[in-house]
Amino acid sequence: MKIIKSLKSMRALAQQWRREAQKIVLVPTMGGLHEGHLSLIRRGRKAGDKLVVSIFVNPTQFGPREDYSRYPRTFTADKQKCREGGADVIFCPTAEAIYPDKFDTWVSPDVTGSILEGAARPTHFRGVCTIVLKLFNIVLPHTAVFGQKDYQQCLVVKRMVDDLNLPVRIIVSPIIRAADGLALSSRNAYLSPARRRTAGVIYRALCEAKKAIKDGKTQPALLTREVRKTIEGESEFQVEYVEFADPQTLKKQKTVQPPTVVLVAVRLGGIRFIDNLLIK
Amino acid sequence: MKIIKSLKSMRALAQQWRREAQKIVLVPTMGGLHEGHLSLIRRGRKAGDKLVVSIFVNPTQFGPREDYSRYPRTFTADKQKCREGGADVIFCPTAEAIYPDKFDTWVSPDVTGSILEGAARPTHFRGVCTIVLKLFNIVLPHTAVFGQKDYQQCLVVKRMVDDLNLPVRIIVSPIIRAADGLALSSRNAYLSPARRRTAGVIYRALCEAKKAIKDGKTQPALLTREVRKTIEGESEFQVEYVEFADPQTLKKQKTVQPPTVVLVAVRLGGIRFIDNLLIK
Repeated sequence: MKIIKSLKSMRALAQQWRREAQKIVLVPTMGGLHEGHLSLIRRGRKAGDKLVVSIFVNPTQFGPREDYSRYPRTFTADKQKCREGGADVIFCPTAEAIYPDKFDTWVSPDVTGSILEGAARPTHFRGVCTIVLKLFNIVLPHTAVFGQKDYQQCLVVKRMVDDLNLPVRIIVSPIIRAADGLALSSRNAYLSPARRRTAGVIYRALCEAKKAIKDGKTQPALLTREVRKTIEGESEFQVEYVEFADPQTLKKQKTVQPPTVVLVAVRLGGIRFIDNLLIK
Repeated sequence: MKIIKSLKSMRALAQQWRREAQKIVLVPTMGGLHEGHLSLIRRGRKAGDKLVVSIFVNPTQFGPREDYSRYPRTFTADKQKCREGGADVIFCPTAEAIYPDKFDTWVSPDVTGSILEGAARPTHFRGVCTIVLKLFNIVLPHTAVFGQKDYQQCLVVKRMVDDLNLPVRIIVSPIIRAADGLALSSRNAYLSPARRRTAGVIYRALCEAKKAIKDGKTQPALLTREVRKTIEGESEFQVEYVEFADPQTLKKQKTVQPPTVVLVAVRLGGIRFIDNLLIK
């Protein structure tokens, strides 16, 4: 497994692979790798001939008061996971090389990027789209793998691929959960053991909503209230939003019925956690 | 020479050319082709193996009160010019195929796109960057040719190529002028014969400014006033801006000295005309 920092070397290798008709797969990550990432890497391994895992804590997708500086950086452990998952290359550029001083061009989703996570984090998806497009142009993948955990991000990236005619196939890989149901996330490392023990309630609340919908409940206000009550009643998490939305467009459903996706964002100690459940 | 409307067919042909190791050149145009475009096409012909001229009047780079609907559309004559210039393909997609209903992702220059033309036309360069990136992803060129006539556009596109790591080389081709010095532009067709006869004054004013700078004049206010006086004194054109700027960054020079670029925008009958002169 090679570790490449230089943009030029990464591009040159990708071009060489393309000349050899190798199919390239990219798994973009911000490091802090856990079993969720490992499942993306394993999925990517099966999707082509050459597998690149990028590790880059992208400053432009963090807001000014967010956790960029304290975001988990665990490169030694990350390397081990990439090797386990069968990566051919870890691509880990510096922020200076990705965003040089003169940098001035941004890729932004409009409507899709301004609701839900975009409403809470106004420049977040602009940062995501810009870095993903840059990585695509440096690594030249045929296929890229994203995690369903970041549901809206997957939609925004798929929208970008269609809108900008990018020759890249997007695979969305399922959420990996801990034994108590908590969706794996690098940010879970911020939770104290006591708080971590209550965090399973988020997924439990989503499952209860699913059951309620399957039992015929259709009122978003009612369903939302129940999710809030469960989470806030049984933990210190504060619910920022609960939405029942069309899985393709993320438009709120006025009458909730499958297919629907429940999206939830909660806060604790200044950190946000998100989760979602697709109900078919 | 092939005429291709379908995005899918264009991409497939580009991919076939790439497999055959052919170097692809793109000359993006909005049609209404004149000798200026023909010079770009001839330049493009020498820059690679396969030459694509795109003809697409891009709605998103026009403002709501601009001339999108009356912009010259002269496809039959355009075809003849493309053939003369040695194009292999004219790519002329429909607006519906380029911007389907769900379209939601934009590429925008920030600072470079908000000054000069960007100040007068706030969404113009967002439209330009978005269509150019889309064309790059459909036609997959190794090289693309732009005209220096749209000086700021050339800088914005080069900035985008660097910022988004696009694997495309940009060639900037010199301005082609009529016998009286007027820069060739599709919009010149809007001028009545009487007004057309006075239009050479724009270039004459730029040449006078060049002479004044070579003679040691350095004050932008003074130089600007002289350009305005010449143009407005000898024609009905109204000067919107005259700027003496750094050729690389387009920052205004407080003390004008070579290398500098003089950029001018004038208006007549609701239509804007731009020109520029690089002083080395």
